[in-house]
This record gives sequence, C-alpha cells and structure tokens, in this order.
Amino acid sequence: MKKVVVIGTGKVASHLTKAIVTAGHEVVQVVGRSEQSINRMFAEMGMTLPYTTQKSEVTQQADLYICSVKDDAITQAIQGIDIPQQALLVHTSGSTDAAVLAPLATHYGVLYPMQTFSYGKEVDFSKVALYIEANNDNYLNKLTLFAQTLSPNVKQVDSAMRTKVHLAAVFACNFTNHLYALAADILQEANLPFSDLLPLVNETTQKVHTLSPRMAQTGPAIRHDQQIINKHLSQLNGKAKVLYQLLTESIQDDKL
Amino acid sequence: MKKVVVIGTGKVASHLTKAIVTAGHEVVQVVGRSEQSINRMFAEMGMTLPYTTQKSEVTQQADLYICSVKDDAITQAIQGIDIPQQALLVHTSGSTDAAVLAPLATHYGVLYPMQTFSYGKEVDFSKVALYIEANNDNYLNKLTLFAQTLSPNVKQVDSAMRTKVHLAAVFACNFTNHLYALAADILQEANLPFSDLLPLVNETTQKVHTLSPRMAQTGPAIRHDQQIINKHLSQLNGKAKVLYQLLTESIQDDKL
Repeated sequence: MKKVVVIGTGKVASHLTKAIVTAGHEVVQVVGRSEQSINRMFAEMGMTLPYTTQKSEVTQQADLYICSVKDDAITQAIQGIDIPQQALLVHTSGSTDAAVLAPLATHYGVLYPMQTFSYGKEVDFSKVALYIEANNDNYLNKLTLFAQTLSPNVKQVDSAMRTKVHLAAVFACNFTNHLYALAADILQEANLPFSDLLPLVNETTQKVHTLSPRMAQTGPAIRHDQQIINKHLSQLNGKAKVLYQLLTESIQDDKL
Repeated sequence: MKKVVVIGTGKVASHLTKAIVTAGHEVVQVVGRSEQSINRMFAEMGMTLPYTTQKSEVTQQADLYICSVKDDAITQAIQGIDIPQQALLVHTSGSTDAAVLAPLATHYGVLYPMQTFSYGKEVDFSKVALYIEANNDNYLNKLTLFAQTLSPNVKQVDSAMRTKVHLAAVFACNFTNHLYALAADILQEANLPFSDLLPLVNETTQKVHTLSPRMAQTGPAIRHDQQIINKHLSQLNGKAKVLYQLLTESIQDDKL
C-alpha cells in the first residue's frame, strides 16, 4: 500500500484517484485550486478524501505525488509544493516530457493512463493501458508495482515513445469522437437520432479487433465511387466538407 | 417466404444473401459477372446457391430482385434483365436515388442495410438498421414485412433522407476507420501494435451510448492545449498533418 497525494481535480485526476483508492492505497491528500473544484471532484467520485487548497499545507508524509492537471499547467501546479526527497513525483500527461519535473523533485516520472475520461461515465481501470517512466531504475520498479495494482496492462516507455502513443490516441479517440459529432449533425438534419448509428459504430469498432484497419476499410472513398462522393460533397459545407474531401483523398492514398 | 434473386456478388451481396437464406427465404438465383466472383461469394458465405452469369438466363420466377453492386454500376448490372411486372426490384445503395430503377421495373425501391461489411467478418443482421423505400404503398408494405424478417430495426425513409443517413454513416464508420489506420501508422513508428489502442477505441465507442458525442469530447483540441497540439503537429507530415490541424479546428469551432 502506498500513501499518495493527488495534485489536480479534473477528469483524469478524479477517475485515477478513485482507482487508486479502490486498489487499496491511501490517498492522504488531494490538492486543488479551490473548494469548488475539490467538491466537484468528490461528487464525481462519490467519496470524500482529506484535501487542501494551500500548497504550504501539502503533506510530506506520502510516497507518491501524482500531478494530474492540464498539460501546460503541470509545472505551475507543482511549484511551491515541497516534494520530499524520498518520494516519487509523476505527471499523467501523454505528451509532456518527464524532464519538466526535474527541477521539482529528485525522483520523477510519468504515469500516463491511455484512456478517455468523461464526467458521468465510469471507467473500468483494469482495461486502461498505463504507460510509465521514471528517472531511476529503483523508482521505476516501485512505480511498475504500483501501476500493476491499478491495471494488468502496464508498459514502460520513454517520453518520445509515449508522445507517439498519445498522438495515436488523439486520432483513434478524440478525432473519431468528433466524427461522431459531425455524423450526429447530419442525422439531425433528417430528424434522426444519433442512436440510429450505434450498431454501425459498434461494428466499426468490433471489426478492428480481428481485421487491421486498412483491411476493414469500406465506403465510397476506398471503392473510388466518385458519383457518391460528389453527391455527398454537394450536401456539405464549411469544415465538414473540407474534412470529407481530405479524408477521402487520404483513404485513396493508402496502399495496402 | 419470398423467392429472391440477388444480382451482385460483393461484400454487401454476400452478407445480405446469407441473412436472407438464414431468415428462411429461398434465394432462387444469384446473378454474377463471372464464375470466379460467384465462387468467391459462395466461399465467403459458406454455402452454394443456384446461379447464372448470363442475364438472359435470369429466372422470371421470383418476387424480389435485389441488386447489390457498386453504386455507379447499378443500372448497368440490371440492364438486360427482364424484371417481371409483379416483382419488386430494389437496390441496396445508401446514396442512390430509387428513381434510377424506374426505367428498369414497374415496382422498385431500396433496401439499404446501414452497416459495414467486410470479408472474413460475420455480421449479426439483427443489429443492422434497414432503410427501405418503394414507389408503391402495397409494395412498401411487402418490403417492410420482408425486411422485418431480417432485422427488427426497419425504417421507411425517402431517398433524400437516406442519403443523409449514408453521409452520416461515412463519417461515423468509413472515416473513423481511416483514423484508426492513421493511428496504427503512428504506433508502428514506435514499434507498438494497434491492439494497444483497443481499450481506448472500445471506450470511445461505449461513451457515445450514454453521452452525446459533443459531451464525450476529450483531448488537447477541446482543452485548447496549444503546447501539445504544436508538439503533435511537429511529428506529423503530409495529409495526416493537415487532418490533425483541420480536425482540431473543427473541434474548437463546436459550440455545445
């Protein structure tokens, strides 16, 4: 069991903190900018924990300090907190170099959960891939053991590799979700609900469990069905139209 | 039970024909361009059926003629086949107007299965949404009853509405799948398998079962995390880079 301090109160922080508590560790303190943000986090988690909004009051009695805030706020969120010499400080960012923590702690690293976290949607942490890194082999081993209590899927990667993983995740998750939003807009023009698309969305996902994405590609672009492509383009405008054109060209560029 | 002729031997034709046979109808003939294409279809289906490669040999003894070929080949595939006066002729295209069949049959319509079909991947037809249309109420009723033997999810829509449905499907399925392919390329640069992304891909899909896509949006674009966005752009080139930029802008344009 580890004594953990969590710095941050956002979506990743609340899901991760809940997973840490559930795994039997002691979250000795949550550090947030305001009572309001901390209350929101606790409401989301369905539990309360010791907390502070004052950096000077952050406990020295923890093994692991996890900073889970917006990537460009990491340094600022930690500055002013005295991280004990023997403790490990990690951030949870996919694309931020571990080295940004070097001025802030002796032992530092990364615990990046590759998953999409939203308020109001529980996540099964045992299915989350955790990409970890530390600046010292002994602490990397400790972090590995800790991460394995959260998920069986733990991988040690360096910062350059982790950035690739995060970039891939942006395409496969964030951008994919935005395409769902554009599809919902189009359906709405026909007064149809997005839920009509769910069987198709499910099957699209299921297919890439057994086929490579390129083997699974279907649709007018890969068939070079220019008549349909033109018809679709005539019904679109703005960024959705440019995206349709570009995604079609990108599919047609692909060589199997 | 209906007597059905299927014109076409591709992916949609083979999945649909199998579903029709499984539902207890009699597929009295498959019409294909070559023995080779017909053999491939039968191998894919794991069954053989009566067939012909000669339009002049197409039977007159069927109630329903289904043309399932590439959209811009529909007219050509049917021309030369004598569709009996009492029969119904349908195509299976999402974006082709039903009226293209007007010169070819007295009674005509559409049976569009909104799903992505690939070789080597079984599809549960009961989960497929079927969008149907006919040029005559009596035949629309017959087509509805037939379609309901294949799936409980049958909707009557006109050609304009169906094109919207198909356009939405292209975004939610074909383009989404291409983003998976781009993500696979990026992971490959780090010698990581695409399968590492599957828990994230699953969760992204699961989320839109309970949250609207816009509520489910996460990632650097929606957070306006420009530092990470710039870092990602610096690692991309070609169409993937332009797509990253455009998808990011499109996410940031969205108003909840």
